[in-house]
Amino acid sequence: MTQRPLRMTHASAPLTEVVEVINEAGERCACVIPCERALTVFVDKQELVTLMTLGVRPEWLVLGYLLNQGLVGGVQEIASITVDWDCGAAAITTRAGLVGLQEKIARRVVTSGCGQGSMLGDLLQCVGARELPGTGLTQEQVYSVVNTIRLQDSVYKTAGSVHGCALFEGRELLLFIEDVGRHNAVDSIAGWMSLQAGMTGANKIFYTTGRLTSEMVIKAAWMGVAVVISRSGITQMGQQLAQRIGMCAIGRATHRRFLCFSGAQRLHLQPDLAPVSRLRSVA
Amino acid sequence: MTQRPLRMTHASAPLTEVVEVINEAGERCACVIPCERALTVFVDKQELVTLMTLGVRPEWLVLGYLLNQGLVGGVQEIASITVDWDCGAAAITTRAGLVGLQEKIARRVVTSGCGQGSMLGDLLQCVGARELPGTGLTQEQVYSVVNTIRLQDSVYKTAGSVHGCALFEGRELLLFIEDVGRHNAVDSIAGWMSLQAGMTGANKIFYTTGRLTSEMVIKAAWMGVAVVISRSGITQMGQQLAQRIGMCAIGRATHRRFLCFSGAQRLHLQPDLAPVSRLRSVA
Repeated sequence: MTQRPLRMTHASAPLTEVVEVINEAGERCACVIPCERALTVFVDKQELVTLMTLGVRPEWLVLGYLLNQGLVGGVQEIASITVDWDCGAAAITTRAGLVGLQEKIARRVVTSGCGQGSMLGDLLQCVGARELPGTGLTQEQVYSVVNTIRLQDSVYKTAGSVHGCALFEGRELLLFIEDVGRHNAVDSIAGWMSLQAGMTGANKIFYTTGRLTSEMVIKAAWMGVAVVISRSGITQMGQQLAQRIGMCAIGRATHRRFLCFSGAQRLHLQPDLAPVSRLRSVA
Repeated sequence: MTQRPLRMTHASAPLTEVVEVINEAGERCACVIPCERALTVFVDKQELVTLMTLGVRPEWLVLGYLLNQGLVGGVQEIASITVDWDCGAAAITTRAGLVGLQEKIARRVVTSGCGQGSMLGDLLQCVGARELPGTGLTQEQVYSVVNTIRLQDSVYKTAGSVHGCALFEGRELLLFIEDVGRHNAVDSIAGWMSLQAGMTGANKIFYTTGRLTSEMVIKAAWMGVAVVISRSGITQMGQQLAQRIGMCAIGRATHRRFLCFSGAQRLHLQPDLAPVSRLRSVA
């Protein structure tokens, strides 16, 4: 018997707002700021969590959150996702109920998307089970990704104060999502991926404007993506995790410069494409 | 009877690490990155949460976390805080046990430090109970704060990828704390404040390199601080909350420019100090 498809709303809301501000010259002027709204997630009528979000595609966000927290094993377990901005609620109904939901959410890791434990070993356990695909990329592809993001229309360009994440396949931008928190943007991408029949992390590149903390590396690994590129830097735990699981982690990627922090074997360097060397700042 | 003072370790750990990276020219070079470590918090031997932190002053962080989450009412409720980096654990013992701990942590708000609810009204409830002091400041003070931060030694200057928060009284820098997450840095300041006998948020200015999201506004209000300054921007909910509670929220504060998003009545403008006007970017 074929399973009924997942039913899902497509809730929309303004992403920016114009407010009056006073600048240093004492002038009143208009300023565009990003929206931030609370979305309380209910699974089978049980309140789970409240996410603070920009609200671009809340259904993908909620789905990706459940997947990246390991609360659901796959999209096939979900019957419907209904988001209503009037009451700031996302109602998820599962097909067969979630087993052990309370136990799974009992342990909290703040700023890590992995609710499993406290130490590097535990974090590794979360991602170690998933073997990463053999994705590689060329230096030219790194430049192509960075340039595509540069040209992308975005809330950031008009309002600032949001992070962007994107998924690429080769040079092709599959999805670009912004949110007030990096973790929301990456969760939304995970949610979207799970809705594309047969899509895996193979041959994908994950891009983020935010830092590559342990949380971001874990979430990328959780999505099965072996290459991550960031405009920003990396933390020690992010770098250690990436190294242990063989993920290619490229940071400080702006213009034609970057640093490969981990997994250089996946990167085909083309130094001829590099700009003329100069004193670099890595700050 | 005088209560015995709070016993506290002073755990220290390296804040940066040098790793080998490969740059776009194919050169192997050294790069300084910030540390990130897991700290699992146990209250009276019960596991509460794991915080991912740079690790500057973990005892202040844990104390501030408990205060800002409303899990303890004051520092007088705590008998000791012991941080051991070898096992990545912070052990807190309370004087009389925490009442209703499970209920208090049952509802989660992701990226908001306020675990009370989901909607703006609920968020307001969290902060509305505390009336903000009558703190004001001059434009010259804004410039002084920004300049002091600019001159401050920091992990950010050597390794990037961290956020800084600071507490000022007038022009005087009382405390500067960096962490991998903004919320940790502000929690550490709250913890430190609670240890200074008789200190309140009156006449204090809170500075952050990060964005003024709802979480940051709520945490500042929770500390009783009426003036916040950010190098970055503000979100809609951050701005709305600040306006409702009469907090002066100044963002985009770099060099001699800034935008006052809320509470301009607290700011004594001195437009003569402003740089010569030019086309501004608010992105």
